[in-house]
Amino acid sequence: MKKLEASWVEIPENSDFSIYNLPFGIFSFRDEYPRAGMAVGDEILDLGIAAYHGMFQEILKDDTIFDRPVLNEFIRLGKKTTSAVRKKVQDELCDSNSRFRQVAKLLVPQAEATMHLPVQIGDVTDFYSSMEHATNVGKMFRDPENALLPNWKHLPVGYHGRASSIVISGTPIRRPWGQLKPPDAPPAFLPSKRLDFELEMAFVVGGDSTLGEPVPASRAEEYIFGLMLFNDWSARDIQKWEYVPLGPFLGKSFASTVSPWIVPLEALEPFRVDGPLQEDPEVLPYLKTSGKQNVDLTLEVSLQTEQGGPGMICRSNFKYMYWNMAQQLAHHTSNGCNLRVGDVMASGTISGKERGSFGSMLELSWGGKEPLTLSDGTTRTFLEDGDTVIMTAYGEKEGIRVGFGEARGTILPPLEQKRENS
Amino acid sequence: MKKLEASWVEIPENSDFSIYNLPFGIFSFRDEYPRAGMAVGDEILDLGIAAYHGMFQEILKDDTIFDRPVLNEFIRLGKKTTSAVRKKVQDELCDSNSRFRQVAKLLVPQAEATMHLPVQIGDVTDFYSSMEHATNVGKMFRDPENALLPNWKHLPVGYHGRASSIVISGTPIRRPWGQLKPPDAPPAFLPSKRLDFELEMAFVVGGDSTLGEPVPASRAEEYIFGLMLFNDWSARDIQKWEYVPLGPFLGKSFASTVSPWIVPLEALEPFRVDGPLQEDPEVLPYLKTSGKQNVDLTLEVSLQTEQGGPGMICRSNFKYMYWNMAQQLAHHTSNGCNLRVGDVMASGTISGKERGSFGSMLELSWGGKEPLTLSDGTTRTFLEDGDTVIMTAYGEKEGIRVGFGEARGTILPPLEQKRENS
Repeated sequence: MKKLEASWVEIPENSDFSIYNLPFGIFSFRDEYPRAGMAVGDEILDLGIAAYHGMFQEILKDDTIFDRPVLNEFIRLGKKTTSAVRKKVQDELCDSNSRFRQVAKLLVPQAEATMHLPVQIGDVTDFYSSMEHATNVGKMFRDPENALLPNWKHLPVGYHGRASSIVISGTPIRRPWGQLKPPDAPPAFLPSKRLDFELEMAFVVGGDSTLGEPVPASRAEEYIFGLMLFNDWSARDIQKWEYVPLGPFLGKSFASTVSPWIVPLEALEPFRVDGPLQEDPEVLPYLKTSGKQNVDLTLEVSLQTEQGGPGMICRSNFKYMYWNMAQQLAHHTSNGCNLRVGDVMASGTISGKERGSFGSMLELSWGGKEPLTLSDGTTRTFLEDGDTVIMTAYGEKEGIRVGFGEARGTILPPLEQKRENS
Repeated sequence: MKKLEASWVEIPENSDFSIYNLPFGIFSFRDEYPRAGMAVGDEILDLGIAAYHGMFQEILKDDTIFDRPVLNEFIRLGKKTTSAVRKKVQDELCDSNSRFRQVAKLLVPQAEATMHLPVQIGDVTDFYSSMEHATNVGKMFRDPENALLPNWKHLPVGYHGRASSIVISGTPIRRPWGQLKPPDAPPAFLPSKRLDFELEMAFVVGGDSTLGEPVPASRAEEYIFGLMLFNDWSARDIQKWEYVPLGPFLGKSFASTVSPWIVPLEALEPFRVDGPLQEDPEVLPYLKTSGKQNVDLTLEVSLQTEQGGPGMICRSNFKYMYWNMAQQLAHHTSNGCNLRVGDVMASGTISGKERGSFGSMLELSWGGKEPLTLSDGTTRTFLEDGDTVIMTAYGEKEGIRVGFGEARGTILPPLEQKRENS
C-alpha cells in the first residue's frame, strides 16, 4: 500500500477513519436534513457541500446525489464512480494546496452529528459461515462428535432475516417477549431470559442483478459495495422453541444493529489474506474462488454494565471465516435469486478457536453453564437489562489503520404492558 | 350483505371483479406510466383520472396520489381513507346518473393493460399455518405417528422470505439450479428435479407499527390492508439438502408469484367464518382471537401443459387455516418486530383433508411416489418445463362473488450456461 501524504484535516493517531478509509454514511447536523458524508478522523466531510463546490464535477452528472436520506442512488452509479469520488476526496485531503481547505462547513464534528441508516435495506440475509461458531453450536445442541451438519462444508448455509428492525448504532434494544418452553412444562409468554449478541460483519450489495441469472463467484466483488459491523441480537430461548423446522424468526427479528459507516471494499485491500483450504470436501466448481478472499480485521466486543466497564469480552477476527463473501454471493444467486442495491448479507457469528474469541454469550458462557466474569467483577451468562454491547472492527498493517467505528446498543427492560397477556 | 344497484359498467356474470370487490392494483396502458387502478368487471377504473375529475375531492388532499408506480403511499393514508375511496367508487358506479359516465378514458380494458407489482414490498414472511399441510409434510419426512412438531399448535411457525424475487402473475419462472444431494453420493450442482408450487394466500400490511411495540391480536386488522394469491414456488430437492438448521433459503428464493389485485379486507367481510377450535392445546392469551376470523375462499390450482389443459389439480379453501391472519400478525409483532406498509405475510401452503385439496405437487403426488394423472392424459410428480400453474381464489355467497384473478406462471427450462460450473 502506497503511503499517502498527511492530510490537512487533523486525524488522530489510531483513528478508525484514517485517510486510507474514507467510508460513506448518512448524517444530520442540528436541524438539517440527513445527507451523505464521509468520515475523516473525528470529522464528517459533507459530500453535498463538496459536490456543490465542484469537487466531483468531472465525476458526477448530478451534484445533488448526496442530498438524499440514503446512499442507494449513489451506490447504484457503480464502483467506477463511487471509487472515483473516494479517490478525489483522498487526493484533495492530502493536497496542502487544495482549494477545499477554504470551503466553509465542509467538515462537521462527528460528535455533534446524528448518524442514520446508510442505505434503504431491501433483503437481509444472514449466513452461518464461521466453522468455529457452527461447531460450537453443534456441540452444545446436537452431537459433540458430529457437531457440523452434513451440508455445512458443501454450501454457505444461510437464511433470510428482517430488514424493518435493523437499527443504527446507539439505538437502545428492548428486551423481547416470546414463547419460552421449559423442559417439562408448556410454553409461557415471557420476556426472554437468554438475550444475546452475535458478532458479525455484513456487506452491502452494490449492484442490481437480473432475476434468473446467477452471478459467478469470479464477478461477485462487482456486487459488493462495502462492509459494516452487524450485531444480530438473538433471544436464544425464543429461538430454541420456534425454530424447527423453518429456522430462526422472532428469536432474531426484534432488532439488529449496524455500525454507521460503510467501509468500501477497496479500503480493505491492504488487509486481504488467504482463506482456509476447502479440500475436504472440495467445494463444487460454482463456489471455487482463488486469491486472497478473506480479510484480516480484528473484531472486539466490550460489555459495559450498570456496575462498570466497558471491558472486552471477545476478540475475534473476520479472517476466520470458512466461506468468503464471494462464495456467499455466488451461492445466493446460484438459483437465479436477484440482488438489489442496499441488500445486506451478514456473515453469521464470527468465532475463533479459543474461548476468548467466541462471538456470542451463548458460546462465551457455553450455553449459560460457565458464567463469564466481567472486568467489573460481576458475572454474566446472557445479557442483563442495562448492559451495553459495543462492537468494533479494524484492520491494521504497516501503519495503515482502517476501522469501522462502533455498533453499540443498550438493553432496555421488557415492556410491562404485556404482562396481562402472558 | 346489502345488495347494490346494478352498475352502469357492464360486469360479466361470475366476474371476479364484481361491484362488491373493487380491488386495488397498479397498471399501465400502452406507453403510459404505471399508476393505480381498480378492477371492475373486465375493465380497470383509472383512479388517477377519477381523482383528476374530482371523484375524491372530499376524501383526498393530494389528487396525484394515484399517479405513482406503487400503492404504498396511498395505503399509508389509512383504512378510513382507502375505504372511503372504495365506497365512493362503488356509489358512483351504481348511480345511473353519475357524472363520471361521461369522463373519457376512465375505464381501460384489462385485456389491453399490463399489470405491475402493486406495492413496494418491504419484508416478506411465510407462515406454515395449515395443519393439513404441516401434517402431510411431517408424515412424509418425519414420523407418521407424530407428524406435527411440538411447537406447531402453540405458535404460528413462520420464517422470512425473499422480497426481490416476487413477481407479478404472468412472469415466467426459470427452473433453478442448486445443490442436489443423492442418498449415497456427494451433492452435485444441477437443475432442480423436484420443482413445485405452493398454494397460498398473502396479506399486505397496511400500517407502520413501532419497533419494540407489539400489535395485539385485537388490533391486528387495522394493519391488514388486503389480500393476494401467492405462489411460493419451491425446489424441494434444493430445500431438502440446504434447510438444516436455518430453514428454507435457495429452495424458495428464486421466485414467488402474486396475483395483481389487492382485495381489501373489507371486501371479504361476507365470506368470514369461524376458524377451528384451538383448545388442545389452548392458545396463549396473546394469540386468542374471537369471532369469524377465517375466510371462506375457494382456492383452485390448474395445470396447463404443452400437451393440453388447463385441468384442475387442486381445490382447497382458505377457511382451512388453523392460524388466522390476526394471530399471525400478533405473533409476528409479539417480540417488538415492527411492520411497514407493503410488508407481505403469506399463509403457507393451504391444504384440506382430502388428496384433491392438497396445495402442492409434493402432497398431490405424495412425495413423488404416486404420480398425478392430468386431464391431458399425461402424468406428473413435479412440474416440468413448459408447465403453466394457474391459481385462482374467490368467495361466493348469496349471489355475491369476490375473486382474485389469477396467479399464473410458466416454467422455463434451466439456463444452459451453468453446465460448465456443475
